[in-house]
Order: sequence, then structure tokens, then C-alpha cells
Amino acid sequence: MRWKKISDAVVRRLPLYLRVLEEVSRDEDRKLMSSQELGERAGVSPALVRKDLAWFGEFGKQGVGYEVSYLRDELRRILNLDEKIRVALVGVGSLGQALTRYNKNRTEQDRSFNIEIVALFDNDPSKFGKTIEGIAIRPVSELAQVVKELGVQMAIVTVPADQAQVVVDAVVQAGIRAILNFAPTKLVVPEGVHVASADLSLELQRLAYYLDD
Amino acid sequence: MRWKKISDAVVRRLPLYLRVLEEVSRDEDRKLMSSQELGERAGVSPALVRKDLAWFGEFGKQGVGYEVSYLRDELRRILNLDEKIRVALVGVGSLGQALTRYNKNRTEQDRSFNIEIVALFDNDPSKFGKTIEGIAIRPVSELAQVVKELGVQMAIVTVPADQAQVVVDAVVQAGIRAILNFAPTKLVVPEGVHVASADLSLELQRLAYYLDD
Repeated sequence: MRWKKISDAVVRRLPLYLRVLEEVSRDEDRKLMSSQELGERAGVSPALVRKDLAWFGEFGKQGVGYEVSYLRDELRRILNLDEKIRVALVGVGSLGQALTRYNKNRTEQDRSFNIEIVALFDNDPSKFGKTIEGIAIRPVSELAQVVKELGVQMAIVTVPADQAQVVVDAVVQAGIRAILNFAPTKLVVPEGVHVASADLSLELQRLAYYLDD
Repeated sequence: MRWKKISDAVVRRLPLYLRVLEEVSRDEDRKLMSSQELGERAGVSPALVRKDLAWFGEFGKQGVGYEVSYLRDELRRILNLDEKIRVALVGVGSLGQALTRYNKNRTEQDRSFNIEIVALFDNDPSKFGKTIEGIAIRPVSELAQVVKELGVQMAIVTVPADQAQVVVDAVVQAGIRAILNFAPTKLVVPEGVHVASADLSLELQRLAYYLDD
């Protein structure tokens, strides 16, 4: 609530900072880090690091730097990662399955990665009851009920483009307000619902621009 | 060359415009489109549409709008999508396989999607010679040779984080200058090489920020 006006560009960089701080506190037992070094390792200018973090409080001391474990914990809190976030994935095709495995590995390798796929949905009856990484595939019609039961807060959508809007409507209807969308289409959602696009085709097309440099 | 100074934020939006124009020219046989409508369908303000496109030329006519097929073709040319771009994927785990299938579907469903995975690489000998969607998996040691033979210009990297930098060094060494990286780690590349991050963990963490709105 407090930070409503903070731009998405700032929010986008917070996980980069968090990753550096987690690496450093895990691998190097470091106590302090300068904005210079944090910036270098996150791929962001030191001035921007200081500006971004200043939105959320006074974390650094001039000439001393940031306390690594304190800033890490604060960033985890700001990003709501201090408690486990439960995720539903809708569309258990090959991409959906790969993401489920990927997430399983990620959460096993890193206990502090608190974002976990806990429910899978599809509309193909031949998949119902099968499991991926121990998670049963259920019909989309059970979405609202399961979201409530399991306390799901986030959804990953990996359905074909022509089904994405219908699925997202159901996801929003079920009370989910943060969606990672892999379908190559623009989605319409009510205010207060956040959609991040992981449209790989768009990323590839953007990269192509740089080929004739 | 001509457009060196154009910011990545502008480049990022070009594929969004292209997608709208392709949908419209395919499904609706439309001749003209206003910046208002193009913006609405791409999720960008009309003023920003006009500003973005003005970097590349005078495409629209005041009060008339953009010629759909002309602007579509120009955007394809600007994004280097008027000729086929060949892609190598390194790291044929479950995510790599899913992306290969996804790309195959995409290129089959849309003939104008000119970005095609043509070579697969891994470092696990038990995978060598196996095929995914008809594409043989080869050892990473053959990367440079295959890139040259097949005219590969782009790479998708889906290896674990601790192998990503070594793989990317080999990719760059082979002459590739555009990389889509799925490994959850920052990569160091020489100037002139572009890396787009498709780090799903970062996207999920960013979305988590909005959960307590």
C-alpha cells in the first residue's frame, strides 16, 4: 500500500539486487557491500541502485555501504517473499510440464525461493488425475475451489493464445491478482490485477533487431 | 547501424505493434489503422506509438492513420524478420525440449514467424544423436562448426546457472551476437553482444511485489 507510486522499472530491479545479496551472504559470508559492487554484480549503475533502494528506506551508510543480511531480509519482505507464495499453473502441455519441473528444482535447491507451484490445471480430460512432480492435474472448473483451499495467490498461464483470455478470466474470478502469462497474446484484466508477460516470441523478435548492428 | 541510439524500451515495443498489425492484416483485411487503435490493441498510449514509430520514419498520415500492410512490412524489416533467423538452443533438458516444441508449433502455425530453432546442443553424451522435433542433439564442442555451416545467428541458453557463463562464452566465440538466456544468473558478454533475460524466477519474484496491494 505504502509504495503504490513506485514504478514497475524499479520493482523489476529489486529481484536482481536480492539475488546478488543472497549469493553473497550464502557463498562469501560478507557483512557489507557498497552500492558500487552491488550495482556491478546486478548490472545496474551504483547511482540507480541507491535511488531504487531509497524509495523503501535508508538502508546504506555513506562510506560504509549496505549491511548484506539486513538489506536481503528487507528486500525479501518488500517483495513479499518472506512467506511462501503458492502458485497454480494452467495448461499442462510440454512448456507447463517443464516449468513445473524447473520450479521444483528451484525450490529444492534454494530453500529461500518461496514461490512454489502447488496446483496444476488443464482442460484435457485425459490428463486429469495424472501427476507432474507429485502434483495432480485437475480440471479448470475446479480452479476457484482449489485456489481457496490451498491459498493460491499467483498463476502461471501456459495455454494456447486463443484460450488465454478465457483462462485468465477464470483465474481472476478465483481471486488471483498476479499472473505470469506465456501465451503470445495481450490479455485484458481488471485494475489491481498484474500480468507479467513471458512471451518468448516477443523476446526473440526483440533480439532480432540487434542482429544487423 | 542507422538506429544505434534508439533505446531498448522502444525496441521492446516494436514486436507488440507488429503482432497487432499481423493479426489485423490476417484476420480483418484492414487497410488503415489509427495510432489510437494500434496503441489500445498493443497496450501502449497512442502518443507513445507515434513517438516510437517516428524514430524509424514517417509512417502515418495525420487524420488517416497507418497503412497496415506497409507498416507491418517496414516493422518486419526493421526487426530483421524479413529473412529467416536460425537459432541454436544449448541445454536440452525439459525446458529446452519444451521450447523446441513450442518454437516448432509457432513456426508451423505462422509462416511469417521467421525465427527457427535449427540446432540443439548438450554436454550429456547419452543425448547425442537423439532428436527433438527432427533436430539432432550434438555436443557443445561442435557449436562453432555448426553455427558456421547452418548460418545460425541467435542462441537460446537453457543450461543450469553454474554452466551458463561457459556456454555463453562458447556461443559468443562461435560468432553469435544475440542470446536469450533462461539461466538464473547474470552473464558477462563483450560489447556488441545482446543478451535478453528470460529468467522466470525473477519474473515471479517481481510479480510477488504486487501481492499485498
